[in-house]
Formats: sequence, structure tokens, C-alpha cells
Amino acid sequence: MTNVFFPKQEAKIKNEYDVIVIGASAAGLSAALYAARNKKNTLVIEKNGGPGGQISTTWIVEDYPGIKSITGQELSNAFAEHAKIFGAEILYGTEVFNVNFSEKYVETKGLVNKRFFYKKLIIATGSVHKKLGIKGENEFIGKGVSYCAVCDGPFFTNKDIVVVGGGNSALDEALYLANNFARSVTIVHRRDKFRADKILQERVFNHKKIKIMFNTELKEIKGRETVESIVLFNNKTNETFEMKTDGVFIFIGLNPATEIFNVEKDENGYIITDEKMRTNVKDVFAAGDCRKNQLKQIITAAAEGAIAGYYASRELDEQ
Amino acid sequence: MTNVFFPKQEAKIKNEYDVIVIGASAAGLSAALYAARNKKNTLVIEKNGGPGGQISTTWIVEDYPGIKSITGQELSNAFAEHAKIFGAEILYGTEVFNVNFSEKYVETKGLVNKRFFYKKLIIATGSVHKKLGIKGENEFIGKGVSYCAVCDGPFFTNKDIVVVGGGNSALDEALYLANNFARSVTIVHRRDKFRADKILQERVFNHKKIKIMFNTELKEIKGRETVESIVLFNNKTNETFEMKTDGVFIFIGLNPATEIFNVEKDENGYIITDEKMRTNVKDVFAAGDCRKNQLKQIITAAAEGAIAGYYASRELDEQ
Repeated sequence: MTNVFFPKQEAKIKNEYDVIVIGASAAGLSAALYAARNKKNTLVIEKNGGPGGQISTTWIVEDYPGIKSITGQELSNAFAEHAKIFGAEILYGTEVFNVNFSEKYVETKGLVNKRFFYKKLIIATGSVHKKLGIKGENEFIGKGVSYCAVCDGPFFTNKDIVVVGGGNSALDEALYLANNFARSVTIVHRRDKFRADKILQERVFNHKKIKIMFNTELKEIKGRETVESIVLFNNKTNETFEMKTDGVFIFIGLNPATEIFNVEKDENGYIITDEKMRTNVKDVFAAGDCRKNQLKQIITAAAEGAIAGYYASRELDEQ
Repeated sequence: MTNVFFPKQEAKIKNEYDVIVIGASAAGLSAALYAARNKKNTLVIEKNGGPGGQISTTWIVEDYPGIKSITGQELSNAFAEHAKIFGAEILYGTEVFNVNFSEKYVETKGLVNKRFFYKKLIIATGSVHKKLGIKGENEFIGKGVSYCAVCDGPFFTNKDIVVVGGGNSALDEALYLANNFARSVTIVHRRDKFRADKILQERVFNHKKIKIMFNTELKEIKGRETVESIVLFNNKTNETFEMKTDGVFIFIGLNPATEIFNVEKDENGYIITDEKMRTNVKDVFAAGDCRKNQLKQIITAAAEGAIAGYYASRELDEQ
């Protein structure tokens, strides 16, 4: 995610596009593929330096049907290359900070500072990691506190670390860290069981380097220059205790990146759409992790993107 | 589709499975992948000799995000292999002809004649080609009338053929036939424009070997041993005329293969589900082309399968 590069398309960036997609996520790039394949001028705007959203921070993807095993980075790149074949343009390092629904433009900052006018807008901004909101958390980000195992794992080679959470990402990342870098991984989870997939639970339970602490809450992160210890609370015994650790990886869920979009959302900020991925605002669609849906997987995000790209194109054809 | 083979799993076929999937389609195999990955005993029952459903009759797939170009057969096989990695069993050449929802079993005929009991059933039977219902159509099936370009294309090398229809499959198959086999392809469509994707329309319009007849309806197919000519009707000029041809490929839409399932359906026979792919019958799910949905694409079928497989597994975990 650090290789910020500027696309070759710079010279031909237009002021107006048939379809503008915000976010080069699985959903966004799939939407762009479907729109571009239907001969629509399509621009994807991505604030990071490369494609992928959440996927690019996933180590190994083994549940995208048809592709047995691929790194998140490789799959993200494949999505981007696929969309480009049909003519979609992708602008990296550029963030949409404002949207005007009545005049139908987005405003960007970063590598390109510009107003782009759209005929159809597809929001595919995904989601960002939730924070615990405890003492020491913000202070030690990048100094032992992380929300991305792929990004920061190498810094914890032969170290003892803690993973917080009980869902698929927590267990997935714990396995990745244990298999590749850490000397030991302790999973701290506030409930008495995991909600992750059975197969991941099995792998975690059988892993020699992984220890599990159920009914345990992380209360504070302590250290001088970097993380040195954490304060834990056992909610069954009501016992508070301190434990030495070199790092804390927090995977307790996601918040949708939807703040700047004034469309209908649920109580958690997820965008509400109909089955064609249309929001309550004319000509504005949403797809993927930022949308209120049933299952947040790469395959479902890609399908939602396809539906949004398809119907955005169809509506343009009919106009 | 003709290589009927029997899986190695024969010896270990059980009488009961956690999850039974009917149809080795994109949706069915994706459902099996997700169920098996969640450690559920999973069986896929497929009436044909190989995987894929509609996909396996598609020549080139270029809109499955992340895979730029792949034959339908290759993608079908990739889906099947992927599901098997996690332990799903696939039974080919075996057709489900009866389902008992109260006692929770399916009955099969073909290579395996048996009752299989399920805890969760996922219907992913896809759809079959619609017929025109005109004189000569049934009579000449396999003798010049076809519903599958991939299957029958080679028989029309250097022949003059007709394709009936105006949607994506009609244009896709017309291009495939023109590029690979036929001397000339005439697309006969009853409306004054196509409803297919723009990119396909463009390719068809620019193709030297393809001729297009709009506002034209096929009324009769004539011949002795094989197809020799067709009777056409121009619905703008009200003119009826005969045209010589060696073959007729009909791509006018699909009917869902849902006759034997007594679940809630729409007026066209498509199965109605909620967002978790659950039908109105307890423990019975549906996914893919047999389901009432917004877009019939491989990516959306695979996503629906993933959702069905996931929620079937989740419900089993909770029970």
C-alpha cells in the first residue's frame, strides 16, 4: 500500500465520466469492469497508492471461488488489471473529500486536486478498522499497536504478541502472524467462544505457537518507547492482571467509510440500497463493505460491484 | 458434458450429509466450497457428467472479476476442484427426481439410485433453454437445431447458419460460431434492437461474417433429413419469406429448472428467497440461476452460493 504511483492515464484525465467509482476495492473494481465492458467512460478514484481495500491487507485468500489460493495483493492487482482491459481508468493516491449530489460532481485532494463530474456514481469505499478506545491505543499506533498483520507483521519477527478479537479476521491474522513472524501469539477474546469459521477455529486450537485467553478484555496498553505490557481483565473471575508483550494487533470489526455521503444508512453507518444497488439518491449506487448486506466476503463484494456497474450502465443506455 | 465419469468418492458415499447441494453450477459449487470450508459434510449431486451448468456451455468467460479470460469448461473445473479441496464430494451423472421436505431426503436416479438425507438442502439447479415452440423445432433437434453453440458448433464448419435472439447469449454465441466454425451467421431478432451489452453489439455489428435481420420472427424450420430452410416473418412489413440455412441456433432465454421443488416461486418459476438465500421451506436454500434475482452472471451466482453455503453452515453451528 506504500507504492504510491500515478497512472499513465494522467494526460487523458477527463473532467466528466459516465461512471465514477469511489474506491478500488473488490466491489469498486468489479463495478468498473462491468461499466467499462458496457462501453461507459469509467474512472475509479482510490485514496491509497494501490488497489484492493481490505483485500490487500489480507495475506492469503482461499475462498474466492475458482481461485484456490492467492495473496490479497495479487488478487487486488488482478481485479485492477481486469477492469483496465476494458478501458477503466484508475486514479491512485487521490481522495474524494466532498460530493455534490445536486450538481453531480466529486471533489478530490492528494495527487489530483480536481472536480470530476459524473453521470452515475458508485460508492465502494469499504470499511475501516474499529478501535478499542482504551488508554495507550492511539499513543502506540506504529509503535507496537497495529490493525494490519500484513503491513506490520515483519516488525514482530520472533516477538511475543497479542491478537484481540474472535471473528474471522482475528483468527486469520493470528495464524498468519504465528506462521510467518511471531514467536508466540496470544489471542485475547472477551467472550467464551469464537464466532469465526470452524476451519479457522480448528487451526488456531491446534497451533503450537497460539495460546487463547477467553473471557478476557484488553484494558490498557503500556510501555515507554514501544509497547511493553498490557492490562487484562477476566470478566468471569473479575481478576485484573498485567502481561508482558511486544505488540498488540486489534481485529474487532469494521466501520463503514461512509461519513461524507449523505445517503440513507443504517444505525451503524452502512449504506442502504435496493437490489440493484441503488441508494435513495438519484444516480448514486453503493456496493461492497460500505453497504448494508448479509455477508462481507470478496465474492459478495465483487458480485455487488457487478450489479451496480451493470445497472448504472443500463440506466445510461436507457437515457 | 459427455465425459460421464464417476467420482473416486464412490466407496465413501454416505446416506446422510450436513449439506446437500443440487447442481454443480457456479452457485452450487460455491455453496459447497463455503459449507465444506466450514467443516460440514457436503455432497453435490449433478445430473450431467461434469460440472458447470450454463457456464460449461459458454465458450469464453471474460467477466468473472480477477480472471481475465478462461473457457467455461476450465472455470467450471476450477470451481469443482476448489470445493473438493475442502472436502466436498461431487456425484456426477446422478439426477435428483424427488425431494421429501418433511422427512428431509432427496431421491436420485442415474449412476446412483439412492435416498440421501440432508440437514440443509441448497437448490442450485440453474435453468434450461427456452424453446420457440414452432413447427420443425423439436423434429430437427440434433439435426440442425441446437441450443448450445459450444456443444454443436463444430458440426457447422463452413456452413451458413442462423442464430435466433437478441440478448447477451445470442450475440455471444453468434460471435463464437462466426469466429470458429460457420461460413456465415445471420442473427434473426424479432425486435428493432438488441438488449445485449454494448460491447457485444459493437462486435457483432463490425463482424464481416455476421448479418443481422431485425424485426424478423422465425416461424417454421423445414428440411428432409436435416434443416434446409426456414420461414421468416418481417413484423414491420408483414412479409413472409423463406431462406436457405444449414442450421438454427436458438438463444431466446431460459426457464428455471425448478419443477420438482414445491417451494415459493414467482410467475416464471424462479425460486423466491430472503437475503440469506432461504426459501419459504425450513432448511431449504436456493442460489443462482434458479433463483429470482437481479442479474444472472457467474459472479452473482457464485456470490449467492457463498451466501447460501455460509448461512446453511451457520444455522447448523447454532443448532
